[in-house]
Amino acid sequence: MCRWMAWSGQPLIIEELLFAPPHGLVDQSLHSRMGVETTNGDGFGLGWYGAGDGPAVYRSVAPAWGDENLRELAAHVESPLFIAHVRATTGTAIQQTNCHPFRHGRWLFVHNGVIAGFPELRRDLMLAVDPSLFAAIQGSTDSEVLFHLALSFGLDEDPIRAVERAIGFVEETAERHGVEAPVQASLGLSDGTRLWAFRYSSEGKSRTLFSSCDAASVRRLHPENERLQRLRDEDRLVVSEPLSDLPGIWESIPEATVLVVQPGDDEQRPFRPSR
Amino acid sequence: MCRWMAWSGQPLIIEELLFAPPHGLVDQSLHSRMGVETTNGDGFGLGWYGAGDGPAVYRSVAPAWGDENLRELAAHVESPLFIAHVRATTGTAIQQTNCHPFRHGRWLFVHNGVIAGFPELRRDLMLAVDPSLFAAIQGSTDSEVLFHLALSFGLDEDPIRAVERAIGFVEETAERHGVEAPVQASLGLSDGTRLWAFRYSSEGKSRTLFSSCDAASVRRLHPENERLQRLRDEDRLVVSEPLSDLPGIWESIPEATVLVVQPGDDEQRPFRPSR
Amino acid sequence: MCRWMAWSGQPLIIEELLFAPPHGLVDQSLHSRMGVETTNGDGFGLGWYGAGDGPAVYRSVAPAWGDENLRELAAHVESPLFIAHVRATTGTAIQQTNCHPFRHGRWLFVHNGVIAGFPELRRDLMLAVDPSLFAAIQGSTDSEVLFHLALSFGLDEDPIRAVERAIGFVEETAERHGVEAPVQASLGLSDGTRLWAFRYSSEGKSRTLFSSCDAASVRRLHPENERLQRLRDEDRLVVSEPLSDLPGIWESIPEATVLVVQPGDDEQRPFRPSR
Amino acid sequence: MCRWMAWSGQPLIIEELLFAPPHGLVDQSLHSRMGVETTNGDGFGLGWYGAGDGPAVYRSVAPAWGDENLRELAAHVESPLFIAHVRATTGTAIQQTNCHPFRHGRWLFVHNGVIAGFPELRRDLMLAVDPSLFAAIQGSTDSEVLFHLALSFGLDEDPIRAVERAIGFVEETAERHGVEAPVQASLGLSDGTRLWAFRYSSEGKSRTLFSSCDAASVRRLHPENERLQRLRDEDRLVVSEPLSDLPGIWESIPEATVLVVQPGDDEQRPFRPSR
Repeated sequence: MCRWMAWSGQPLIIEELLFAPPHGLVDQSLHSRMGVETTNGDGFGLGWYGAGDGPAVYRSVAPAWGDENLRELAAHVESPLFIAHVRATTGTAIQQTNCHPFRHGRWLFVHNGVIAGFPELRRDLMLAVDPSLFAAIQGSTDSEVLFHLALSFGLDEDPIRAVERAIGFVEETAERHGVEAPVQASLGLSDGTRLWAFRYSSEGKSRTLFSSCDAASVRRLHPENERLQRLRDEDRLVVSEPLSDLPGIWESIPEATVLVVQPGDDEQRPFRPSR
Repeated sequence: MCRWMAWSGQPLIIEELLFAPPHGLVDQSLHSRMGVETTNGDGFGLGWYGAGDGPAVYRSVAPAWGDENLRELAAHVESPLFIAHVRATTGTAIQQTNCHPFRHGRWLFVHNGVIAGFPELRRDLMLAVDPSLFAAIQGSTDSEVLFHLALSFGLDEDPIRAVERAIGFVEETAERHGVEAPVQASLGLSDGTRLWAFRYSSEGKSRTLFSSCDAASVRRLHPENERLQRLRDEDRLVVSEPLSDLPGIWESIPEATVLVVQPGDDEQRPFRPSR
Repeated sequence: MCRWMAWSGQPLIIEELLFAPPHGLVDQSLHSRMGVETTNGDGFGLGWYGAGDGPAVYRSVAPAWGDENLRELAAHVESPLFIAHVRATTGTAIQQTNCHPFRHGRWLFVHNGVIAGFPELRRDLMLAVDPSLFAAIQGSTDSEVLFHLALSFGLDEDPIRAVERAIGFVEETAERHGVEAPVQASLGLSDGTRLWAFRYSSEGKSRTLFSSCDAASVRRLHPENERLQRLRDEDRLVVSEPLSDLPGIWESIPEATVLVVQPGDDEQRPFRPSR
Repeated sequence: MCRWMAWSGQPLIIEELLFAPPHGLVDQSLHSRMGVETTNGDGFGLGWYGAGDGPAVYRSVAPAWGDENLRELAAHVESPLFIAHVRATTGTAIQQTNCHPFRHGRWLFVHNGVIAGFPELRRDLMLAVDPSLFAAIQGSTDSEVLFHLALSFGLDEDPIRAVERAIGFVEETAERHGVEAPVQASLGLSDGTRLWAFRYSSEGKSRTLFSSCDAASVRRLHPENERLQRLRDEDRLVVSEPLSDLPGIWESIPEATVLVVQPGDDEQRPFRPSR
């Protein structure tokens, strides 16, 4: 049911996080430890900010572990902010337009989780998407519709509020259809400057989501670890599953919470869907 | 802008029509003569009736000319009724769920043409699809929505009337949006027993569509041609472009007409979109 | 490291064995129990004998569990003899020409296992392939080279002897290069009439391989099981892993043994590589 | 039969040359004007020098015109030296390992053309490849073997001489097999600093190959053209076909010639296969 990771900080060659760590995301595509499914082989995607206009998106239906092009890109693209996602479909087609991240303008969006009862809810949810955005929906996933709801509800103005309204709307619609506990979501979102990581589920039992601890304490804790010594204060990693078992490196993002990674101090806030 | 062909008659190994003729459909994928585009390399599909329940559908995003699996299937599947389609996208994604034929229950559907202004019309057209069918729309093409409109308007009961209503509805919606000459269509449709071939466009300048002539006259005309001598009275081929230049084999289906290929005498009727 | 299955017997719609059983091959592609790797997601292939000339082969680089076309084919192709294979690469590229079964004339060939040290041995092994067959090697796997060695060593005349010579030659070559225990192999082979299943490894610790028990005893053992009651005396299934946990249905093919499934009594023989 | 282009000069966002020009390489993939085949839809590849170690290679079996990921990469990767290639197969499989550029260490290599009679010559040519390089041959094309012959014949020490020996060896081998006029080649080669463009065919009728004219004269000739005014003295483009019809911009590389694009003055030399 998908795994993702996001980096914000000093520019990195992407493979350093995607392939190099013992339990990096590509390894998780083959054997995830904390996911509902152990295999995330139904495509993947990588979005990054760097050269050229707006974010780049590379998406493929091949499993991440076997995609030569992903290996090439990761080894030759450097970026200060990127999001990667490996997919395990919950029923919708395996096709590029169903792979994350989804993009709109400067926005990138990934989702691990599911909207329960999506086949019944799909029509009502799509109707609530701003008509000017309707034709931009290219695939058939719940995640892409959720993203377009957030765009419709003001993502550009107030991202957290927009996501709260989008998820609130999904819950409201589900209730009307008699679908219980409709939302299961860890979400990653970025505009190229900030990075939002949401952890929420209607029933309060969300998928795991972790962020890397404060860089200074990580360096202090592991003085012998060369890689960790290179961490700078503004560096932050968000992951569905820890990339390594080293102690003191990861902290769990609490239930119903959004973490905002941004220049200066990051911020953590309660997340409350609104109707 | 796509090419298609359909066979109804004695069971044939599919390659006899798909690969063997000098200008068969796979050849047309690489260099069509009569199409708006000469290259139809944005995927293809093959639907057939035979063993197992309901029609089978094989669709791929590879160009038909280079797909090894299509060559294998065509050489090893025998069927009395099949439809094949090569695609040239008019803008929507190259993905399996956008490849024809589309299927619903026993129905197969292919479309060569376009709904002009589809990005603007898409939302209104999808809203008119029966809510119980909404979630079955897997791709993002105009063609798949048109098919689901026809299903919503009674394809099971009266196929011609349902298509007339579907196209009428598209024209009406387009008018409301100020889109002129919205429908350009040659359509193939089958339920496994009958085969319908529609030729229609709002402006009265439809894509080409041909059917093979009466088998008896073809045999008489070409007594030396072994392959044509094997034609039986119930055999009928419908094609976007003639597969060969032999005279007396093809007749053009007129503008605004539907041909019904069926056991016993086939039938040709005017096609009039209804509102 | 791959899983495979083969059927010889009454004509079956392929999905009955590929998808329907609780632990069918497609399920094994996602979570194998007895394989070295639990995931076999690096492509798959299906070869069958039926309509048209010679065997058909459908191969794809997509994981078997997510391939819509495999599902379609399996549901609509009927065959009395077919072989299916799911792949976990041991290092060579994920591409159709590396997917099993390999075909030559009427022959189909699948391999679960590995030739240790193949990169060093590859040149010497390919040199031993009959020059007239050299250009037919399309991919880069050890398995395809092994198949072409067997073809070079007289597969058409004496299949078992040819495979014994091919594997003997690999072992001899490996010895020269200082590679120990070079062959790990469960092999499936068919000419459309007979089916050979080989289990052999240089170190005597071969991958698992099972065949279905005598149809009469299976029917007697499970009188309540409708599906098993349909088994006929000539039906035989060979599998890397049992498709179900029912007792008395599977027997392990012993080490260094070849099973010949054929019209009339099947035969089991010791397998001894020859030099 | 393939088209390619190479850039050496100031760092460019790749799409400026791949997609932006009226007759850029991606356009040529759909309708080449000067190629033997008008459609080059059997895969493509892009190799570039930039961030990370050694050159990056992105290759795909999709037609270049429809590949979303190529569009993304081209729009977001900047490089001072890159080579792109669109493929029309002359018979070998459509698979990533058959797509150009081929890479070895710092080397990138592309080929437009063919080795006539390759199926007969393949074994002898592969035998001449240095055994230590044999296992590095991943695909089944004549081009990849030619590249490995050049590597075996000293590409690292003297690139032009190595290619002269490689092609001389192919001609010699072909002669032994009674194959006439075996080599048809326009070749692109780079080590990240220099770029070599070879034009040669055994019969003296080579595929077209052009280089951009001296930047200063181009700027003088087209003072009104903003894009051309940005050309710097070290900028050089090599193309199978001109990207635009503007006069005074392209010069044909003569038959049996190699152009060396390098820091300082470029160089043009006769090319003579040696035996």
